[in-house]
Amino acid sequence: MNENKRPLILITNDDGVFAKGINTLIEIALAFGEVVVFAPDVVRSGMSNAITVHNPVMYSKLFSEEGLTVYSCTGTPTDCVKLANYVLFQERKPDLLLSGINHGSNASVNVIYSGTMGAALEGCANLIPSIGFSLCDHSWDADFEPARAYVKSIIGLLLKNSLPNEVCLNVNIPQGTIKGAKICRQALGHWQEEFEPRQDKNEITGYWLTGKFINHEPNAEDTDDWALANGYISIVPTSVDLSNKECVESIKNWEGVINN
Amino acid sequence: MNENKRPLILITNDDGVFAKGINTLIEIALAFGEVVVFAPDVVRSGMSNAITVHNPVMYSKLFSEEGLTVYSCTGTPTDCVKLANYVLFQERKPDLLLSGINHGSNASVNVIYSGTMGAALEGCANLIPSIGFSLCDHSWDADFEPARAYVKSIIGLLLKNSLPNEVCLNVNIPQGTIKGAKICRQALGHWQEEFEPRQDKNEITGYWLTGKFINHEPNAEDTDDWALANGYISIVPTSVDLSNKECVESIKNWEGVINN
Repeated sequence: MNENKRPLILITNDDGVFAKGINTLIEIALAFGEVVVFAPDVVRSGMSNAITVHNPVMYSKLFSEEGLTVYSCTGTPTDCVKLANYVLFQERKPDLLLSGINHGSNASVNVIYSGTMGAALEGCANLIPSIGFSLCDHSWDADFEPARAYVKSIIGLLLKNSLPNEVCLNVNIPQGTIKGAKICRQALGHWQEEFEPRQDKNEITGYWLTGKFINHEPNAEDTDDWALANGYISIVPTSVDLSNKECVESIKNWEGVINN
Repeated sequence: MNENKRPLILITNDDGVFAKGINTLIEIALAFGEVVVFAPDVVRSGMSNAITVHNPVMYSKLFSEEGLTVYSCTGTPTDCVKLANYVLFQERKPDLLLSGINHGSNASVNVIYSGTMGAALEGCANLIPSIGFSLCDHSWDADFEPARAYVKSIIGLLLKNSLPNEVCLNVNIPQGTIKGAKICRQALGHWQEEFEPRQDKNEITGYWLTGKFINHEPNAEDTDDWALANGYISIVPTSVDLSNKECVESIKNWEGVINN
């Protein structure tokens, strides 16, 4: 970080620039530095790290005031990070990327579907310290007030400490009273798919995604899902390096089989 | 796997059901068992693990013959896996999920944007042994012939051996002559964004994604990018568990700071 300047903070999300969660995050971030918001123009949930490859992406400036500039963008959360880097940050890279606060949990396996975490992983791949914040409440008018002090602490900590280059933070916040925060690993689990079939006007059946989350390790006290179920904020160091190093070693003998 | 039955193999991709790559994979897989294809109806590249949450997903059966049934689906690659599980596999889970063969590399950081690997990770989260295959050639008429024997070996190996539940394989194949296969870790890197701005008919500027890949560790011989650059197939054990365990330990002291 350039010591002569206030931190430059890029904020995005996947619920769109007008969501309550991102506006809470903007208010908190303004205490730390200069804020640039570059977020989707509408809700783009479940976008993971999707990028727009067959169409152009557009953006426009919504407004600018002392220390805060807000842009909206037609792309995915990951597109937002890429396009902001291209049009705004070629001279000076952001010191921090914040994504969220998402309306809904991104703990456990949800991290792989999350547009909020897609943006954080994109920042991380670009060597920007990054955090995705999510509140375990899907409602549009969710109460972000109990989370404020914790979100502020975590941002302050990441500005003072460093993470490995390939690691960002996935922060999930329980609803209601918060007991504290825990550094966790991601709980393993999956969604048991329960689609809801509905016929449209032309009697074509469309399948709407619903589903029930199955935690494969509900009693593991070191996981994010356990922390949240017990009233704690979960902070998971989350990597853009998806390779499993132990497994690289354990299947090395496959090389011989394949190459002979 | 049920020992009395031939393996049940689910195949999907992100280039769409009519791509040359998936049809090569189907031909290879038919030697191993009963094949069900459930793939996007059109090209859906760069979709990562995106899911369709605000619209319904539709599917239709294209054809069925001895040992092979082919469906096309309006959703993302991840939607395809979820919907196939819901409509076809509630009684008997697939023994194997194969995704690809993608037209284009999914090595290094490309794994996080890849719809091909999104489908493999989705299979893996659902406890189905899963492999994503990609050829480092974007052309629609790419030559998959040199890859055939290796793809067959790797499928055979995964049917005989097991991986940890949270791990699938990201297999990338170089263009042209193949020297052999290597078990690797994912090279760290990112895309330096170079958008191409174009004005549309209404003089609105749209930004088209292009970009140049920057490998952060070009000399690391244990990485996928190095293997591919040197004529080897890369096989990366790839995890749906994104948490970095060393970092969970190294930042445990943050708990005290946040909670006090």
